[in-house]
Amino acid sequence: MVKIPHRLYLTEDEMPKQWYNMRADMKELPDPMINPATMKPAAEEDLYPVFCKKLAHQEMDNETRYVDIPDEILEMYKIYRPSPLIRAFNLEKALDTPAKIYYKFEGNNTSGSHKLNSAIAQAYYAKDQGLKGLTTETGAGQWGTALAEACSYFGLPLTVFMVKVSYQQKPFRKAVMQTFDAEVIASPSDTTQIGRKILAEDPNTTGSLGCAISEAVEKAVSSEGYRYVLGSVLNQVLLHQSIIGLESKIAMEKLDEYPDVVIGCAGGGSNLGGLIAPFMQDKLTGKADPRIVAVEPASCPSFTRGKYAYDFCDTGKITPMAKMYTLGSGFIPSANHAGGLRYHGMSPILSKLYHDKYMEAVAVEQSKVFEAAVLFAKKETILPAPESAHAIRAAIDEALRCKESGEKKTILFGLTGTGYFDMTAYEAYHEGRMSDYIPTDEELQKGFDSLPQIP
Amino acid sequence: MVKIPHRLYLTEDEMPKQWYNMRADMKELPDPMINPATMKPAAEEDLYPVFCKKLAHQEMDNETRYVDIPDEILEMYKIYRPSPLIRAFNLEKALDTPAKIYYKFEGNNTSGSHKLNSAIAQAYYAKDQGLKGLTTETGAGQWGTALAEACSYFGLPLTVFMVKVSYQQKPFRKAVMQTFDAEVIASPSDTTQIGRKILAEDPNTTGSLGCAISEAVEKAVSSEGYRYVLGSVLNQVLLHQSIIGLESKIAMEKLDEYPDVVIGCAGGGSNLGGLIAPFMQDKLTGKADPRIVAVEPASCPSFTRGKYAYDFCDTGKITPMAKMYTLGSGFIPSANHAGGLRYHGMSPILSKLYHDKYMEAVAVEQSKVFEAAVLFAKKETILPAPESAHAIRAAIDEALRCKESGEKKTILFGLTGTGYFDMTAYEAYHEGRMSDYIPTDEELQKGFDSLPQIP
Repeated sequence: MVKIPHRLYLTEDEMPKQWYNMRADMKELPDPMINPATMKPAAEEDLYPVFCKKLAHQEMDNETRYVDIPDEILEMYKIYRPSPLIRAFNLEKALDTPAKIYYKFEGNNTSGSHKLNSAIAQAYYAKDQGLKGLTTETGAGQWGTALAEACSYFGLPLTVFMVKVSYQQKPFRKAVMQTFDAEVIASPSDTTQIGRKILAEDPNTTGSLGCAISEAVEKAVSSEGYRYVLGSVLNQVLLHQSIIGLESKIAMEKLDEYPDVVIGCAGGGSNLGGLIAPFMQDKLTGKADPRIVAVEPASCPSFTRGKYAYDFCDTGKITPMAKMYTLGSGFIPSANHAGGLRYHGMSPILSKLYHDKYMEAVAVEQSKVFEAAVLFAKKETILPAPESAHAIRAAIDEALRCKESGEKKTILFGLTGTGYFDMTAYEAYHEGRMSDYIPTDEELQKGFDSLPQIP
Repeated sequence: MVKIPHRLYLTEDEMPKQWYNMRADMKELPDPMINPATMKPAAEEDLYPVFCKKLAHQEMDNETRYVDIPDEILEMYKIYRPSPLIRAFNLEKALDTPAKIYYKFEGNNTSGSHKLNSAIAQAYYAKDQGLKGLTTETGAGQWGTALAEACSYFGLPLTVFMVKVSYQQKPFRKAVMQTFDAEVIASPSDTTQIGRKILAEDPNTTGSLGCAISEAVEKAVSSEGYRYVLGSVLNQVLLHQSIIGLESKIAMEKLDEYPDVVIGCAGGGSNLGGLIAPFMQDKLTGKADPRIVAVEPASCPSFTRGKYAYDFCDTGKITPMAKMYTLGSGFIPSANHAGGLRYHGMSPILSKLYHDKYMEAVAVEQSKVFEAAVLFAKKETILPAPESAHAIRAAIDEALRCKESGEKKTILFGLTGTGYFDMTAYEAYHEGRMSDYIPTDEELQKGFDSLPQIP
């Protein structure tokens, strides 16, 4: 009988040395990206102007099952990895559930989230290719912070387009990025053509992730030696984030445990895709059959109410098109939605897996999410990010169902980050000012109207 | 040859089961507390109206060398402990120093600092005695947050008097405490006699830690079943914080390492006293002779420019008097000082050890502190609390001296916490708005004038 500790840290030697690529085990692959200029499938070379070469290769590589993690990346990983697998003993007791709840905690680094796992990889490959700098966008701020840290570590200049509403509401996120020498610009801005166009149409817009992506891509392709990097959605990002799931699986094996259900919050899919990777491999190869559950906000329900269709990744419609569950690149979530998970689309890999019924999805309302967040904080003494709290909500609901049924399920969920920069939302919750929002079918239709026509 | 990892986590089984009490090994004890009503040494019973009994006993117990940590406390410790011992490989490389730099990182919990170690103990003993609630004060906010977490965990109501300037500048700290159900009151307030008196004298005062202590003590002694708890200075707090040093020493032993110099920031002395405890034991018992260095802000220099004298622990002069290095309870540090380490006095235990030359002290200016903080953040990817950055500054200076001399010293410092709630200060630093302040002798004299006359 293995003694279960509260927190299990693997040693550095036990840390995975390779990422895992789910595409290598998928029966059917995601549909290819389409180059909007030619309306033909994009080739790896088509991506070179936007992404650095190694990352373009990873984006298109559907075959390599395991990808060696370069030593330089492992070296920076070791500053904050392996991350702990934690048994939520106190939460279980509070819920009086027979279920066992584990969570993989990715928030114990200054970026405050799992985003650093891919930021380090992307900054490293860019530096390795001799690039002069990077551009990116950030919404809630975790990705921008993570990339700022990684770029500072590798000595690479960085420009971050930060969604204006976040820029205004989260000045401290900006200050953290500046600590790591990043240039932070509120988006839409007058520094790009697309930004000027959007501002001309609506001078009072508070911005969107899709719009910030457009600006960052434009800036990258128009600046000598610059490339654009993205913190979610992309295949390469899911590859890098597989370290989360790989570590989780090794840690659970050490405890003689295997999850009956794996739960992750889903915005663009980076955390979820990383967390589930080795468990999905078991499913794809017939070794095991855990349930995989994506949790998304009811206010931005791409899996549960979106269309599986080709769409642009950005509002400005300058990126390649991807087949994914999407609300349309013109969809902008309600301003009352707190935190991240605001993206209109979803990882093409996860979209395909969901479409092929390898995973489930649920949508949750934010007042219920914050209720779960506060209970979790009190019992586990970690203040979760609003994004992470979506997974907490679903894990609690699962544990409560186990209480009803008496089932002793093993639940694993991803605690992607901490909420220290989201206290405005917590304040709104405490003071009863938080409201829920579920878009009407008519509102969703407006987003769908922005979907491109594919011949 | 032991392979040195970046981060060493002890297992739960390796975590100390006892705290260590430095007084048991001191050749000469700190002078006793004096009851201002009788001007005689206070007895344990004299403390019962203010502290719960077990804590009053720990406060006065100069003999018990090792104190068993109750299981309930160990259980909550395990949620975030053992904390990692980290080798600052990247910082060493950046400094090009032959020195080895280790730091014990206490910031990976939602309170963001080491304060939780004593908060849990104090909340537990209060609950165990059947008390109805607790009061405390908080300055920078870490202690209030930590105690809110601990009280929430043990189901004990808590009222926090938060220094008004912090209350206004750090609304998010308040929101975190409220997440854990604490009542947070800006101090001075009209809810206490001493608060009303101070407000009457200066309606625009932004408060001080000494004043908030007075209010919290008054509220505790005037509320049925309530007691007061303090997060630093006291002997009991140093006892609880010894877990920091004990874990550090075990971890270093596993690496075949022993520090030549141990460095900690010093406000009231809770982190420093905890970090150095087992190393000071080696010094007191002649087993080893590491240098022990306290680092304090030049703007609040109790060790380096204070007097070793009896003083009140609070501005309202209602607490027992302690013999300590002090700037006088009337001393209020300059408003331009960022973060904590603003207390007028210093732990009586550390004061005695410093007076008897078992340790050294240096004072550092805050612009140099933030310079060190930013370098550390970039290299180690942890954004440090301003308090912790005092120790970083001194550790870097020591490592740079080693570079000059070629000495391969082993340096251990305490990284007490993270700076996520201190971004206003980081912003001021980035924007060149941060100034240094060294009080003049005349200004210090005003504080000394508030020292009590002891017959």
